[in-house]
Amino acid sequence: MIPLRGMPELRERDDLAVELLRAGERAGGFEDGDVLVVAQKAVSKVEGEVVRLADVEPSDRARELAGDGDPRRIEVILRETRSIVRARPPLVISETAHGFVCASAGVDSSNAGEPETLVLLPRDPDASAGRLREALRKATGVDVAVIVSDSFGRAWRQGTTDVALGVSGLAPILDLNGQRDSVGYELHATQIAVADEIAGAAELVMGKVDGIPAAIVRGVSLSGGGTGADLLMPPDRDLFR
Amino acid sequence: MIPLRGMPELRERDDLAVELLRAGERAGGFEDGDVLVVAQKAVSKVEGEVVRLADVEPSDRARELAGDGDPRRIEVILRETRSIVRARPPLVISETAHGFVCASAGVDSSNAGEPETLVLLPRDPDASAGRLREALRKATGVDVAVIVSDSFGRAWRQGTTDVALGVSGLAPILDLNGQRDSVGYELHATQIAVADEIAGAAELVMGKVDGIPAAIVRGVSLSGGGTGADLLMPPDRDLFR
Repeated sequence: MIPLRGMPELRERDDLAVELLRAGERAGGFEDGDVLVVAQKAVSKVEGEVVRLADVEPSDRARELAGDGDPRRIEVILRETRSIVRARPPLVISETAHGFVCASAGVDSSNAGEPETLVLLPRDPDASAGRLREALRKATGVDVAVIVSDSFGRAWRQGTTDVALGVSGLAPILDLNGQRDSVGYELHATQIAVADEIAGAAELVMGKVDGIPAAIVRGVSLSGGGTGADLLMPPDRDLFR
Repeated sequence: MIPLRGMPELRERDDLAVELLRAGERAGGFEDGDVLVVAQKAVSKVEGEVVRLADVEPSDRARELAGDGDPRRIEVILRETRSIVRARPPLVISETAHGFVCASAGVDSSNAGEPETLVLLPRDPDASAGRLREALRKATGVDVAVIVSDSFGRAWRQGTTDVALGVSGLAPILDLNGQRDSVGYELHATQIAVADEIAGAAELVMGKVDGIPAAIVRGVSLSGGGTGADLLMPPDRDLFR
């Protein structure tokens, strides 16, 4: 796990691929098979997925759900929400248009770069991951898998872990169904969300306080392809919404 | 992340600490600050937390919940269950006596070492982690943190990630509340479940098929103490049970 240090504060229309390339060079360069994990916030900021609270007029519904929180913030969350999974004002757990289930529809104010500003999730994190991968391949000739990550809370457990929202160039799920363990027992229902584990591993060296928005995870032998959407539980199989 | 290869198939009353020491030596030895991640199944087997299906008489309730599954397996799950969180036969999501919420109360038949055998969770994973840590310290003089890990499914997301059931020698949650991001915004509600991220990172090199039940995660700067129980969401704060 190699943190990519020294990246500048990012703004809309900055070239994130160029900044990642520079940071990657400083860290010794990319290698074939590397997984580049990039924090969602960096991606959203360069893609302009940023809202200034001053520009938001809250609806009655937002005021109702805000409790003692800022109704403008809840209004932005509601605009990012396809359905509310749970609400306990001012806490809202949403299903987003992408199908992610997470607190505040992924809307966050930390590391926004400016005060009174909210950062939304990228419109299409898989497409964002794919564009970064393609830009790195064009610039370096190296095939790097890309994960766009974010910190999600979990049901039943304290604290967040980073998970993969967008994926390009690796199979996000390692499916062991039908394989046998070391004594020959056939494994059932054994699917490992390796992309989420890689995102979490990268978080350990990224750091919200230090402003390190990306890391390389090297030496994970992965093949195949897929998208971050493969990590979403289909609603009809989900016992918790 | 360093996999500990070549460990033997474990049985009740085997000395897991000795086997981990040998495997650690083969991998170059332990260092102060290492985190040793050990799969729950290895711990449970040496602690004798194993049930032979032939010895189980299923209750009516178990038959009812089993659907087309094995009612003896459901009976064992029910004995490990404090409360059923969701059931869709033969799938049972339980809260265990420890307070973990997971599929099948953590009862599993893969890598059990023998056919027709189920492995339960350790009685007290924090105590198991503490004993292993103490044994390694006595034998080597090195202070290694220990995590006892297991693969848990998640609400809303496909696939399992490994999480920390038992912890000794590290703070499982990194609490950033009150710290400021790189532009001075104060972070709120920012608690990172680093022990779960470390467990997930270790899983990437452990492997259910290859029978590698442990790994060293090196270079994570962690301090403080705590237990796996710190990672459990208190029921009164939990919107999902």
